[in-house]
Amino acid sequence: MLTFTDIETAAARLRGVAHRTPVITSRSLDELIGATVFLKAENLQRMGAFKFRGGYNAVNSLSDAERARGVVAFSSGNHAQAVALAAQLHGCAATIVMPDDAPASKLEATRGYGAEVITYDRYTEDRAAVAQAVVERRGAALIPPFDYYPVMAGQGTTALELIKDIPEPLDALIVCAGGGGFVSGCAVAATHLSPGIEVFASEPEQGNDIELSLRAGRIVSIDVPRTICDGQQTQSCGLLTFPIMQALLAGVLTVPDQIVIQVMRFVFERLKLVLEPSGANALAALLHHRERFANKRVGVTLSGGNVSVERFAALMNGTEAC
Amino acid sequence: MLTFTDIETAAARLRGVAHRTPVITSRSLDELIGATVFLKAENLQRMGAFKFRGGYNAVNSLSDAERARGVVAFSSGNHAQAVALAAQLHGCAATIVMPDDAPASKLEATRGYGAEVITYDRYTEDRAAVAQAVVERRGAALIPPFDYYPVMAGQGTTALELIKDIPEPLDALIVCAGGGGFVSGCAVAATHLSPGIEVFASEPEQGNDIELSLRAGRIVSIDVPRTICDGQQTQSCGLLTFPIMQALLAGVLTVPDQIVIQVMRFVFERLKLVLEPSGANALAALLHHRERFANKRVGVTLSGGNVSVERFAALMNGTEAC
Repeated sequence: MLTFTDIETAAARLRGVAHRTPVITSRSLDELIGATVFLKAENLQRMGAFKFRGGYNAVNSLSDAERARGVVAFSSGNHAQAVALAAQLHGCAATIVMPDDAPASKLEATRGYGAEVITYDRYTEDRAAVAQAVVERRGAALIPPFDYYPVMAGQGTTALELIKDIPEPLDALIVCAGGGGFVSGCAVAATHLSPGIEVFASEPEQGNDIELSLRAGRIVSIDVPRTICDGQQTQSCGLLTFPIMQALLAGVLTVPDQIVIQVMRFVFERLKLVLEPSGANALAALLHHRERFANKRVGVTLSGGNVSVERFAALMNGTEAC
Repeated sequence: MLTFTDIETAAARLRGVAHRTPVITSRSLDELIGATVFLKAENLQRMGAFKFRGGYNAVNSLSDAERARGVVAFSSGNHAQAVALAAQLHGCAATIVMPDDAPASKLEATRGYGAEVITYDRYTEDRAAVAQAVVERRGAALIPPFDYYPVMAGQGTTALELIKDIPEPLDALIVCAGGGGFVSGCAVAATHLSPGIEVFASEPEQGNDIELSLRAGRIVSIDVPRTICDGQQTQSCGLLTFPIMQALLAGVLTVPDQIVIQVMRFVFERLKLVLEPSGANALAALLHHRERFANKRVGVTLSGGNVSVERFAALMNGTEAC
């Protein structure tokens, strides 16, 4: 199981390495939502997303002998960069398996951290199998993107910091979910520190596999979702994340892509921050379901900001369709 | 004269009202520049720019009787919003004189703070005269955008915070300049706290009236500069700011608009922050003159982030010409 102690250990490893990202508040946002909102700005994290926390904690958890054989990861983007940067900081080799349609900026950034990138077709190939082949060929350690306790523990440090940096307790916490590693880690931290807090996962409407899974009581797999939220195009959650979500989540909030775009614009124009679509997903979910949170104190993760100027502009002017 | 005590007094008034904005550092920025750079993120200030500091301090400095007759300001944008918001927070009326070609987002935001807006033609009318007419008609107090000690003192709190929030002394500080109120206030604070620091004003190449004035030893007036840096389209600096700049500045750094655009893109994609053109001017000046700052510790103001998504996109794709 994933314990609060694992998250505290991860926090100690990340101290002085990861940024303690700011908690941002905005009067105009509170008016828009009708609640008191605390934004954890993980778009300002190293490499632009919370994923650095889990990647670094996972690489740091390996033995020297394991690290000497290198690490492998498969990811639609930010986990790739996270493991690449974490490997670079530990002086070990990284091979990253990425979909060939991943945003160019993410492919470039991953190579920029010194990793070797192997691409695959997201719609016909199984990324886990491609990664497994590298593991077998090189003896490298696989760092899965979410279904791995050291990764979940690292991600959970986000909620740990958010709750410690706010004077009064939160009523609710909303965390975006792809495979569920981020929300699982955050749920373990949040429910330990704030008994009674309600933790929600947010998903794109088109990619609601966690909602379906929790409703069915078993892991449901869906087709690769067509959503602008490219960090949440997972087909199913993990064997390890699912029971944590079953035990600890108060619910799942789904949100249409169009609301995600509105929130990206609001955050740009009012908060002066850049969010990628998945990075805006949790706040968009709060906006979409705001009646449920009226007058509450709500923590929300802004999970990442890795989007090019061109893609951002295309999303804003509607030339990249939802 | 403007003294360090004036700036400390302003800082006390602003405590709990203005944001203590974060100081942001970036390894990739340091590599690009070849120096250690400390960014004071005033785009994250209330109403999106450092101008809130000066506007609030000025309105707060008035007597109750003066405030009861309302305040007036003329401004190309951010000072307008600053005075409007400061007046709203003090419960007094504000009339703002703005150019009719100011960005729509700034006109809207100013009205959003409850101010009455009067527009004028930037190329044919004298904004000071338009504002003076309101002063005479209503008995309202004029809050000038820069040539006014309470405004300069407020702006100077930016450098005060930056220097106090960094453990080791800075070698240099670069502050963008229109009329010189921001850089004057910052120069008084910085040279008091860090004797030996070199303070530079940054200007658009097309709007280098301060550079010309310091070279000539007298205030030089230029045509309304055609630059994307709409917060720096002043024709001449102030009677009060000029002698402070003469006494305290180490120099003026001018920068072409094209470099400003490059920096806006870099800050968006790498730092995940939104800057308006004038808000990127000081960092662009550092990039343009980086040889001069090699291996130094340089503080830079990111002065504002009030730009619409549409204008930002147009600047990035070249459809708004330099």
